[in-house]
Amino acid sequence: MKKAVILLSGGLDSSTVAAIAKANGKELFALTIDYNQRHQIELEAARKVAHFLEIQHQVVLPVDLRIFGGSSLTDNLAVPKNVPSEQIGRSVPNTYVPARNTVFLSLALAYAETVGAGEIYLGISAVDSSGYPDSRPEFLKAFEHLANVATKLGYESARSGQPGFRIHAPLLHWSKAETIRRGLELGFDYGLTWTCYDPEPGGLSCGQCESCTLRRQGFREAGVSDPLAYE
Amino acid sequence: MKKAVILLSGGLDSSTVAAIAKANGKELFALTIDYNQRHQIELEAARKVAHFLEIQHQVVLPVDLRIFGGSSLTDNLAVPKNVPSEQIGRSVPNTYVPARNTVFLSLALAYAETVGAGEIYLGISAVDSSGYPDSRPEFLKAFEHLANVATKLGYESARSGQPGFRIHAPLLHWSKAETIRRGLELGFDYGLTWTCYDPEPGGLSCGQCESCTLRRQGFREAGVSDPLAYE
Repeated sequence: MKKAVILLSGGLDSSTVAAIAKANGKELFALTIDYNQRHQIELEAARKVAHFLEIQHQVVLPVDLRIFGGSSLTDNLAVPKNVPSEQIGRSVPNTYVPARNTVFLSLALAYAETVGAGEIYLGISAVDSSGYPDSRPEFLKAFEHLANVATKLGYESARSGQPGFRIHAPLLHWSKAETIRRGLELGFDYGLTWTCYDPEPGGLSCGQCESCTLRRQGFREAGVSDPLAYE
Repeated sequence: MKKAVILLSGGLDSSTVAAIAKANGKELFALTIDYNQRHQIELEAARKVAHFLEIQHQVVLPVDLRIFGGSSLTDNLAVPKNVPSEQIGRSVPNTYVPARNTVFLSLALAYAETVGAGEIYLGISAVDSSGYPDSRPEFLKAFEHLANVATKLGYESARSGQPGFRIHAPLLHWSKAETIRRGLELGFDYGLTWTCYDPEPGGLSCGQCESCTLRRQGFREAGVSDPLAYE
């Protein structure tokens, strides 16, 4: 049973990847980053998903990215609403958090190296977030190379001809609908996940932010109903 | 005046690099990571150095790397003492913090992207820390490539043929003595810095950990006296 770190936000994508990694027989170490995003409800979702998937190890690490500012996910800019789904991902959106995936993967790498895991799973998709520079295949390739240069495991693996760190992003070329269908095949419960960037005080999803729009379209295309309640 | 982020720990190396970057005419944004290292006194040194160099912007970001465990810098393993200086750096030492420079550079990248800086300065040296895989030239090169792939600035620079992110490590091939001589030429005060991994409760440096050993040897080789007091 090989050890792997999973970057688990509690959203639909990373939760599906956790289910996939579990189905691949990995011993999972979940890393959930509390970056003071508006949607703290996501952290609770991450805990529920880890419990549902019987993940033994979970670390919730606070890293206050608001200290840098610069994104509507972490400061007080308005979250864009009702952007047509075909326009989402055409340019770098204002929900982009500077260098977020780089920061998250580097923390996952530190966790992996500490526990002796040689693999990291994450839920990025180039399909529905093509506006984020750090959700592209080139980014993953560059990070995997860095991981092998930067760490004791990568360094010693290269010296002894062993395989080094691997970064797995199984959703990279999947649409949201394909992701949902795969999760449902694996028996995953999407009612545990959280997606909305701008939830109502009562805990309902807004249904209109970019993230909700893509999720709802994904469920429609997958031909199944979304277990979450919307405003 | 070009904006640059400096990773400023308050140690001898990063403080010298801050002095160099200032002499290069950069508008500096200092990032000091509070990773719950034993030597909290280093954070105070970072503040003093920033003040001395008239750095206008400084962020101190808490990131509790102890949550992962695995190093004598962040847990309760014994700090190695009285290791002969010629043996330091021959293997990966137990003061190695997993993926530390990757984590720190990725946070610097997030800060840089937020404030619109295109350069990051850091004080790593391949000479006296060759045992750390993330202090080698290959590591820097891999991170610089990643930075250009991962960020809006790098992404948009590449599209428009502009130069992208640059990572500067001016000490990379310098001995400690060369570093100290350069800092003194620039008028820097090494009495403000902190180096010891295992300070005495009264605030004196132990003089015997690997870090103190390399510092003291550096001052001896530079032919100047170290303004710090030792136990």
